[in-house]
Amino acid sequence: MPENSRPRRRADAERSRAAILRAAATVLGRQPDAGIDEIARAAGVTRQTVYAHFSTRDKLVEAVLEQVTAEVVAAMDTVTTGEGESAAAVLVRLLDVSTDAAGRYPLLGAQPIAADTAHDLHGPIVERFAEVIRRGRRSGEFGCDLPLEWLLAAIIALAHTAADEVTSGTLPAEEARRALSLSVSRLLW
Amino acid sequence: MPENSRPRRRADAERSRAAILRAAATVLGRQPDAGIDEIARAAGVTRQTVYAHFSTRDKLVEAVLEQVTAEVVAAMDTVTTGEGESAAAVLVRLLDVSTDAAGRYPLLGAQPIAADTAHDLHGPIVERFAEVIRRGRRSGEFGCDLPLEWLLAAIIALAHTAADEVTSGTLPAEEARRALSLSVSRLLW
Repeated sequence: MPENSRPRRRADAERSRAAILRAAATVLGRQPDAGIDEIARAAGVTRQTVYAHFSTRDKLVEAVLEQVTAEVVAAMDTVTTGEGESAAAVLVRLLDVSTDAAGRYPLLGAQPIAADTAHDLHGPIVERFAEVIRRGRRSGEFGCDLPLEWLLAAIIALAHTAADEVTSGTLPAEEARRALSLSVSRLLW
Repeated sequence: MPENSRPRRRADAERSRAAILRAAATVLGRQPDAGIDEIARAAGVTRQTVYAHFSTRDKLVEAVLEQVTAEVVAAMDTVTTGEGESAAAVLVRLLDVSTDAAGRYPLLGAQPIAADTAHDLHGPIVERFAEVIRRGRRSGEFGCDLPLEWLLAAIIALAHTAADEVTSGTLPAEEARRALSLSVSRLLW
């Protein structure tokens, strides 16, 4: 056995795990009740390989949700760093990141997960919105004096509504995006 | 057997049915997974009497949701008739009716029902909101030109958010009511 076989095996395993997570996000994002067979097929691996990485379907779903959340948070962090930008502009970009993620994995939010887990997953995303609202209030851009908890819950509800309108075919994606950012701006004004 | 026994039996049956529906709304509104035993106890009847009126728990749940919806619609119709009032004032009163119903039966919305049934139940309530939005747009009170479908979906989402904030203890009922009506007014302005 060559000396570098263990690191290589580990790299292979990581690639295989990443491919399964990517495939699972796409498949579950379109068909929430998809089984391990379908996910394995989409990832180009066997059912056994999926189970070698994730002992149960629930564990796989949890890992997918964590990964997609991490992607969304990373994308949000790239749009919140521009200190020169207005809070309103940053807010619209945060909403766009959410809408893009909802468009890529439209039905991923339909996974039945525990309220605690949902809270933990939402936490870092909610924090990005909270930060920009606080900033816009400090600068006087956002005049709305409603409680921060309410504003955050309202923004999340409106973002989910926009995603649902697109998924159900009620509104085209571009119109939902415009409706969402205009509505949230009016809410915070 | 006296001549009036059949109408009287029918009146008794109707009273018993009404008592079961009232009790079921209250019980299920607090504890969504309550069983027939609990509902029978709260209504002061036997389990057998409940089943004499509703052959399955699902049928009972459906009848409860229909009855509560009918109550909400009737209450909404008493506040939408004032032709002299501004659309904004009527809108706030419609929101108050929703909030009151959500306060009486906080967890009733947690019943797992088919999307079609939910759509049919929501229909008449959504129509009341649609009517007042159309009126406010005609009169120029509401300037927002976002699609009516979006505004209705957004108002429903915000109303559910307000109810959830109260149920979870995040906001006191009065504050949630104020946040909801202010947010919806800002949305439509």
